[in-house]
Amino acid sequence: MSNYVKTGKAEGARTELHDKLSLTGAEISVNTLDVGTSVPFVHSHKANEEIYFIISGKGKATVDGEDIPLEEGDWLKIAPAGRRQFFASSDAPMSYICIQVKAGSLGDYTAADAIV
Amino acid sequence: MSNYVKTGKAEGARTELHDKLSLTGAEISVNTLDVGTSVPFVHSHKANEEIYFIISGKGKATVDGEDIPLEEGDWLKIAPAGRRQFFASSDAPMSYICIQVKAGSLGDYTAADAIV
Repeated sequence: MSNYVKTGKAEGARTELHDKLSLTGAEISVNTLDVGTSVPFVHSHKANEEIYFIISGKGKATVDGEDIPLEEGDWLKIAPAGRRQFFASSDAPMSYICIQVKAGSLGDYTAADAIV
Repeated sequence: MSNYVKTGKAEGARTELHDKLSLTGAEISVNTLDVGTSVPFVHSHKANEEIYFIISGKGKATVDGEDIPLEEGDWLKIAPAGRRQFFASSDAPMSYICIQVKAGSLGDYTAADAIV
């Protein structure tokens, strides 16, 4: 069995990669919010931390009621309990990646986990 | 204590986010290979799967000796045992994200882990 799975550029408002890439340690979604729109609900998590990367555009997140401006290249980590919502700017769309992992699940990493 | 940590756009050849973002379920690095260069070694992992996202440019990966062409927007998941190396194209640099998570660590996710 091959040790890799590849998929091409995500298209559309939301692409979920867990099944496409046979992921076992994360769920990753690629999301685009049109100008002036938002995710229509606030949410938090039971067990998972989320890491967001802004691919293009700009907007903001609210976490526990606090506004956090976001633009291309920014990274935002949110602990499971953070109550979060994402908004595109009123004059630009926003495309972003959301990486969902179980909080506390990482053991060794990089050099300590590598075989060179 | 705040439920979030933000950091701005990564600059330079390699930025590691684990400590910058206080990550507990992943290590994430942002990497740029100049035109015609490569990561100078082949590696695999003991416990971690890696997910790569090509932010810009183009190049290739080799996994277990097989060439996999890569361009902007592509995603590549590699199981721990895959012996991997990354190369920028001879006529373009390649910038990519590497997400490292413990294989098999994800439990419930998205709706099953959310509180709305």
